[in-house]
Amino acid sequence: MSIKNAFYAQSGGVTAVINASACGVIETARKNKDKIGTVYAGRNGIIGALEEDLIDTDLESAADIAALKHTPSGGFGSCRFKLKSLEDNKAEYERLIEVFKAHNIGYFFYNGGGDSADTCYKVSQLSEKMGYPVQAIHVPKTVDNDLPITDNCPGFGSVAKYIAVSALEASYDVRSMCKTSTKIFVLEVMGRHAGWIAAAGGLIEDEGIPVVILFPEVEFNQEKFMANVKAKVEQHGFCTIVVSEGTHWPDGKFLAEQGTRDSFGHAQLGGAAPVVANLIKESLGYKFHWAVADYLQRAARHLASRSDVEQAYALGEKAVEFALEGDNSIMPTVNRLSNNPYTWEIGKAPLAEVANVEKMMPMDFITDDGFGITQACKDYLYPLIEGEAYPPYKANGMPDYVTLKLQSVGKKLEIFTV
Amino acid sequence: MSIKNAFYAQSGGVTAVINASACGVIETARKNKDKIGTVYAGRNGIIGALEEDLIDTDLESAADIAALKHTPSGGFGSCRFKLKSLEDNKAEYERLIEVFKAHNIGYFFYNGGGDSADTCYKVSQLSEKMGYPVQAIHVPKTVDNDLPITDNCPGFGSVAKYIAVSALEASYDVRSMCKTSTKIFVLEVMGRHAGWIAAAGGLIEDEGIPVVILFPEVEFNQEKFMANVKAKVEQHGFCTIVVSEGTHWPDGKFLAEQGTRDSFGHAQLGGAAPVVANLIKESLGYKFHWAVADYLQRAARHLASRSDVEQAYALGEKAVEFALEGDNSIMPTVNRLSNNPYTWEIGKAPLAEVANVEKMMPMDFITDDGFGITQACKDYLYPLIEGEAYPPYKANGMPDYVTLKLQSVGKKLEIFTV
Repeated sequence: MSIKNAFYAQSGGVTAVINASACGVIETARKNKDKIGTVYAGRNGIIGALEEDLIDTDLESAADIAALKHTPSGGFGSCRFKLKSLEDNKAEYERLIEVFKAHNIGYFFYNGGGDSADTCYKVSQLSEKMGYPVQAIHVPKTVDNDLPITDNCPGFGSVAKYIAVSALEASYDVRSMCKTSTKIFVLEVMGRHAGWIAAAGGLIEDEGIPVVILFPEVEFNQEKFMANVKAKVEQHGFCTIVVSEGTHWPDGKFLAEQGTRDSFGHAQLGGAAPVVANLIKESLGYKFHWAVADYLQRAARHLASRSDVEQAYALGEKAVEFALEGDNSIMPTVNRLSNNPYTWEIGKAPLAEVANVEKMMPMDFITDDGFGITQACKDYLYPLIEGEAYPPYKANGMPDYVTLKLQSVGKKLEIFTV
Repeated sequence: MSIKNAFYAQSGGVTAVINASACGVIETARKNKDKIGTVYAGRNGIIGALEEDLIDTDLESAADIAALKHTPSGGFGSCRFKLKSLEDNKAEYERLIEVFKAHNIGYFFYNGGGDSADTCYKVSQLSEKMGYPVQAIHVPKTVDNDLPITDNCPGFGSVAKYIAVSALEASYDVRSMCKTSTKIFVLEVMGRHAGWIAAAGGLIEDEGIPVVILFPEVEFNQEKFMANVKAKVEQHGFCTIVVSEGTHWPDGKFLAEQGTRDSFGHAQLGGAAPVVANLIKESLGYKFHWAVADYLQRAARHLASRSDVEQAYALGEKAVEFALEGDNSIMPTVNRLSNNPYTWEIGKAPLAEVANVEKMMPMDFITDDGFGITQACKDYLYPLIEGEAYPPYKANGMPDYVTLKLQSVGKKLEIFTV
């Protein structure tokens, strides 16, 4: 049996720990040089495969590959590019398999969320039909935490830790100032469809902070919200609000799309946080501050969760091990064994059961009033933010993140442009 | 000579390290029990003195006082309350001194920025005139970094580190995504009058990131700005912009006051970042993301600069030592001895030379085009972000910040309400 090469690609929005999965894949492949050849990485994700722009990871030093474990972002580049359905654009799938064949690639490790799980599944099926079977393994990643079966998705735990810690710190700040100044702090977090990240902000309740969460799962009820905020300010002197970008009015319109216009009449500038802050100011008169974390939250490797980094690495490692054991069309998963202490192991799930299934936040994770999280939710979240995993810093005070060489191998096929 | 008590208060916007100064004051006083009595802290700053709401720090455990060193915010509460001029409201100053007299307070440690230096100066002068001389020592603190004589102001170094690291992380994120998605990341930072914090964002240039800084010191020139951004995107594929909240048009109007109105016609929701992002979108068509760090930046004790924490503590410690040596009406200062390695010592400056003097950013710290920082600026900034000083974390993944008991001593005077 000839030794096959591998292809690895990063897909969709990047995270603080997706490179830790890349590190797990590449280091594990390097430990098995007798069974697996070179790991080629797609430049800018799957586009690199379609355009035959394959980065030769053998040209990266062991130290640089190891440094991926503590470097945020997608070290090989990612993309927002969803392959069309097989019926609509079979040519793209066929091109992928041609490229794999030309470079003797027998393993496809695709590191992403729901869409990439689906692509991975189709590549596995089609390659078999085309007579060049490729073992396709999906490595989970998404701050949205919406993949099924796995306990959680790498990237989420670190965002959750960042939001919980940042919301706590800003709340301490407001608590200091509320006697004569700011009484309301509004923090906007990611989550267009699911409130997982906003839920993490709810953990500061256990630190004695009055907090109100606005979830995309709960229609915004302005009257109940104001009453809740007012009660908290009257009791504690201040209140913190964590609002999902996906929070919406009963008619489905996002708060962030409040119809705001600039002086030229151009459409809104975005941001649910300033909308919420201004509604409170108008209704209750409290002085406010607001922040929008945006990319800062998903890129914050400086405050990654240790369990998240370890799981991201382990999922990449196991993806290669499962492939070498003959697995195909699967996704390695995190299986939670216990909450306290948090113990887990890596399992696996068939891609047929993963593709196109979205895991929503259980409704029993949200309190009856719709503004907080339940003990069940806290029990789920705490293990995911457990531990710290600091990157090394340079003498000048900046983190020592790696930028790879990213050298491509020679092309063997005709040009194909996406 | 009878042993006098001390009064300590926090003033104005709080920081990630103002509590480290409080820790330095209280721990040093405790080491000198033979010379100095109880340290009373003002609840919510100077208001606590005026209202005779004095927190007895002797009732806080040694462990809790030590924990202040790693806890952000103002542990005793702060306030935005500026005493009026002596002529306009002498009664307030007289009340302060009455309260000091009633509680046998002979030392006044005031931890704040320019306004509190001025108050400190006046208390020293007036107390002497009133026949109850109080030794008034100003402990510097301000993320605005605008106090004179001292090399820098505690709080600034940690914000600078947070902004430099966060801007770097988000830039790595955008670099990963720019092939098919986001090409522009705009980060709004504090700094209404001076661009010190924005300047810290400029350090990511040394990490290979194309970055454009918008300073309050430089009038916003839309045409030159767009040309600069366009050139960087064409060369690198992406660009990061760090914008001060105080960036303004040639007519002096803040970018954040762009005349934005919501659907009800209410005035703008604020934020220079979304304005800049939308201007780029309209002019160049690039997809963008933006973040507003707001309180997250000044509260981010989880990423404090070690040199900042050490200086904040040392300034509090020296404030007490100087007082015990008989100093009055001074501010301990950080004196830089060398850049590389960064060495410094604590000196002192007369409050007469500190009060009402604002240190601006030297214009030779800004590049000729107005969009970047010079080597001189980098040489100044790097030492201030040197080293990490992580807070301890609890087993559940949250930082172990302290909330003090904050018990007041009994009142001896008539009620006075501010």
